[in-house]
Amino acid sequence: MELNLNFDKSAPETLQEQAFEQIRNHILSGRLRPGMILPPTRQLAEQLNISRNTISLVYERLAAEGYVESRGRAGTFVSRALPDESLNTDPNGPSSIEALKLDLPSPILCFSVHPPGLNRPDVANPLIDFWVGRSDPETFPLDTWRRLLLRKLSVAGSNLTEYGDPAGLSELRLAIASHLGRTRGMLVSADQVIVTSGSQDGLNLICRLLNTQHHPFFIESPCYQGAAFLFRGLGATLYPIPVDQNGLVVDKLPEDRGGVVFVTPSHQYPTGATLSLERRLQILKWANDTNSVIIEDDYDSYFCYDGRPITALAGLDNGQRVFYLGTFSKSLGAGLRIGFTVVPKELAETARIIKSQMNHGQSWLDQAVLAEFIESGLYDRHLRRARKLYKSRRDCLKSSLTKHFGSADITGDEGGLHVAWRLPHGSPDAAVVQQRARLRGVGVYTFGSGAAYDFDGSSSRDFLVLGYSSVKEKDIEVAVGRLSDLLEDMKREFTPYVVFSRQQSA
Amino acid sequence: MELNLNFDKSAPETLQEQAFEQIRNHILSGRLRPGMILPPTRQLAEQLNISRNTISLVYERLAAEGYVESRGRAGTFVSRALPDESLNTDPNGPSSIEALKLDLPSPILCFSVHPPGLNRPDVANPLIDFWVGRSDPETFPLDTWRRLLLRKLSVAGSNLTEYGDPAGLSELRLAIASHLGRTRGMLVSADQVIVTSGSQDGLNLICRLLNTQHHPFFIESPCYQGAAFLFRGLGATLYPIPVDQNGLVVDKLPEDRGGVVFVTPSHQYPTGATLSLERRLQILKWANDTNSVIIEDDYDSYFCYDGRPITALAGLDNGQRVFYLGTFSKSLGAGLRIGFTVVPKELAETARIIKSQMNHGQSWLDQAVLAEFIESGLYDRHLRRARKLYKSRRDCLKSSLTKHFGSADITGDEGGLHVAWRLPHGSPDAAVVQQRARLRGVGVYTFGSGAAYDFDGSSSRDFLVLGYSSVKEKDIEVAVGRLSDLLEDMKREFTPYVVFSRQQSA
Repeated sequence: MELNLNFDKSAPETLQEQAFEQIRNHILSGRLRPGMILPPTRQLAEQLNISRNTISLVYERLAAEGYVESRGRAGTFVSRALPDESLNTDPNGPSSIEALKLDLPSPILCFSVHPPGLNRPDVANPLIDFWVGRSDPETFPLDTWRRLLLRKLSVAGSNLTEYGDPAGLSELRLAIASHLGRTRGMLVSADQVIVTSGSQDGLNLICRLLNTQHHPFFIESPCYQGAAFLFRGLGATLYPIPVDQNGLVVDKLPEDRGGVVFVTPSHQYPTGATLSLERRLQILKWANDTNSVIIEDDYDSYFCYDGRPITALAGLDNGQRVFYLGTFSKSLGAGLRIGFTVVPKELAETARIIKSQMNHGQSWLDQAVLAEFIESGLYDRHLRRARKLYKSRRDCLKSSLTKHFGSADITGDEGGLHVAWRLPHGSPDAAVVQQRARLRGVGVYTFGSGAAYDFDGSSSRDFLVLGYSSVKEKDIEVAVGRLSDLLEDMKREFTPYVVFSRQQSA
Repeated sequence: MELNLNFDKSAPETLQEQAFEQIRNHILSGRLRPGMILPPTRQLAEQLNISRNTISLVYERLAAEGYVESRGRAGTFVSRALPDESLNTDPNGPSSIEALKLDLPSPILCFSVHPPGLNRPDVANPLIDFWVGRSDPETFPLDTWRRLLLRKLSVAGSNLTEYGDPAGLSELRLAIASHLGRTRGMLVSADQVIVTSGSQDGLNLICRLLNTQHHPFFIESPCYQGAAFLFRGLGATLYPIPVDQNGLVVDKLPEDRGGVVFVTPSHQYPTGATLSLERRLQILKWANDTNSVIIEDDYDSYFCYDGRPITALAGLDNGQRVFYLGTFSKSLGAGLRIGFTVVPKELAETARIIKSQMNHGQSWLDQAVLAEFIESGLYDRHLRRARKLYKSRRDCLKSSLTKHFGSADITGDEGGLHVAWRLPHGSPDAAVVQQRARLRGVGVYTFGSGAAYDFDGSSSRDFLVLGYSSVKEKDIEVAVGRLSDLLEDMKREFTPYVVFSRQQSA
């Protein structure tokens, strides 16, 4: 088939950018349908009379952002699951749905799974992978866990066969409430704590409580994909609010209109920014003035390396308007599938009822073990140990970047499990760096590939996210060296291309 | 306050029935609001000039159905959570919702929790409790489970810390697919199986796939409460379809209109009826003709005592239009919180994506243990052992009822964990029997109190559900004896009331 691409020589965009946008639009408009094959780069280059190298880079970027998949010699195909499909932020878009037809799903692109087209590393040629949100398997307290499992099993009685409280095991809710008081400045009672299957389950619960479709949803831009996909999947209208080095730009929230705000104040996902105390107080005031509610996703605040974390919004708010999301996926292990949400006091019983309609709660044994793990102080000890390990990995990453690049423009290094790194000036598009780095055995991710959604795509071009918590120090050093070499090589490779594209538009 | 009740002496209903309906309507219409106190029985009896005994029985029935709560000497109060609130089946009901106000929740009244106002038995005075859907704790394979837990822990690697496939552990999905082929006549591939947190989570997943709000939902009347509450909570319009001794009366489905049908073919909840093969074929034809889909909740079919269970609808259908729900809560233990759903092949990937938005899947360790438990044949052995135990309890219940009542009109005794018992002719309202039996240490349940929803309330008056799977044989005999004594006593007690009410209407 022939692709119809028109280049505007007077446009400020390069040929590569124009080609990317036009093919992307062909895909999104449905003219290029999922599963269709794209013309070979050589053929398209000849047809358009531009360099094959330019077309290859366009295809690479389309692949990196999930629009197409390369299947080696078979060619390049339009992806079956497109990243933008369910993220149309225009409330006036098409809405007619045929009987029993399904909503278009979003791809699985959250913390749980690597982006499409990127397979897990093979054992023979291991990747040094900076995938995000991973706690190191070696930190898992396996012996303690085994001991607690055996102890709880021996007193299980009818707990294995009877239904429990859908809101969670009372010992665990109490342990979590008490831990939040000590660590996050939240004075909450156990009945406000609802144990969930990871924080995504909690986010669903909150959406059910809030009648998602009836309110505007203000979300960080860029933001955590798992939240954006869910809100949109439930029919919410999303309004992106920008983020800077102090987190969400609260001034950009509408003065005259309330709704639901989703924020990651401790460690903004994906930029890593910490919402300043000033802005915390400002957003609480805004929420009060506009009768809004705030969803605070506090996914990794226990890893704060240079001091103590700022009190959670839910702590400052005193249980009025803030729904709090927590998880043990980052602190202990995602395979446990345990998180929790804290709801305002007056909604505690309603939340429990809705939880019973959603899934009747979590495994008794897992909850019982975790409750004792927290209560006995072993959880705090575990956190201290993991914090120390991750801190030294963070230090290693920072010093490696500084060593190879002179200075490194990173955000989010005060805490958490990842940083956002702004590529040195003059570097090629982050999506292309991601693809090329992979060929050299290093897994780095653009915002869009790294479990984030970037509404206008602008910041995706300059930034990579680096999840360092599961990478050993010597591997961090090797990987940063490879990235440095790669960027050097690409600088040389890109020079003729830039000249060539200027010639084209002359 | 004064209650305005008007009796129609020419109506076929007794005074007791009229009073019940009118007070119930006052509560549902909001004239009697949650938390308000009802007049003392003596005062109301004097005011209306009818017997205090009649008013007491009315209050008892209101309490049994969850509309009011007795707080001893403090009086009788309108319940804070009403059973009908979110079950308005009228699609033209009020729908305006204020900004950030919440939907009215339904009470937790499913398998998981005892009905409101009925506490769990205290240890000093144990209740012989026929609560529904309980597997006996003594059947749980504790030693095997411990052994498998330790084995899986020793090879856990990064499984405890990494996110797994949101659709479930592949070994478990494979084991379930294979088990369904052997036991339910379903030829399904592992990718059609989505592991869930109990079947309620699966039902939510199906609702997300089907765009609940866009289709009429046809459900059994009476039906399983967990399903009715969820559908209604998600905004579906419900159409009750009657049930007889052969299950759902398929003829009553509309000829000219499709939608979503929720059925429990193996052991209708709560009546226990088995959907005949003829009707199974008929409903599949109807679904094809009207472009409908069927949700088959197969919650306890592994307990079939007198032969083999009929092939599941999902087996007859061959993966086209039937969504299948299964659970390990009845077969192994509800505390594990593991169930699964089987979706049509073409929706497998979409279901996986939606599952990732809902909760990213279940605990790795629990799934790994269960997979090996099934694959090694230990699950089949467990089922055989439990089936034998429950069969003898069923036999004991049947023979006890026959011994004390001459003949017993029960349905659903071919399989499952409960039967529905039609009270002997001339017995008082089942709700009153439930309340009185509890005072004598026996827990029996009307449909409405026993995790079912009865749309018109008619069958609730004559039937009790008896979940026998966790009651020892000697306790079954004692309990049936007490029920027999109770009904005898109530017959004597009710005679003057009947005479009195006839005098009133003369």
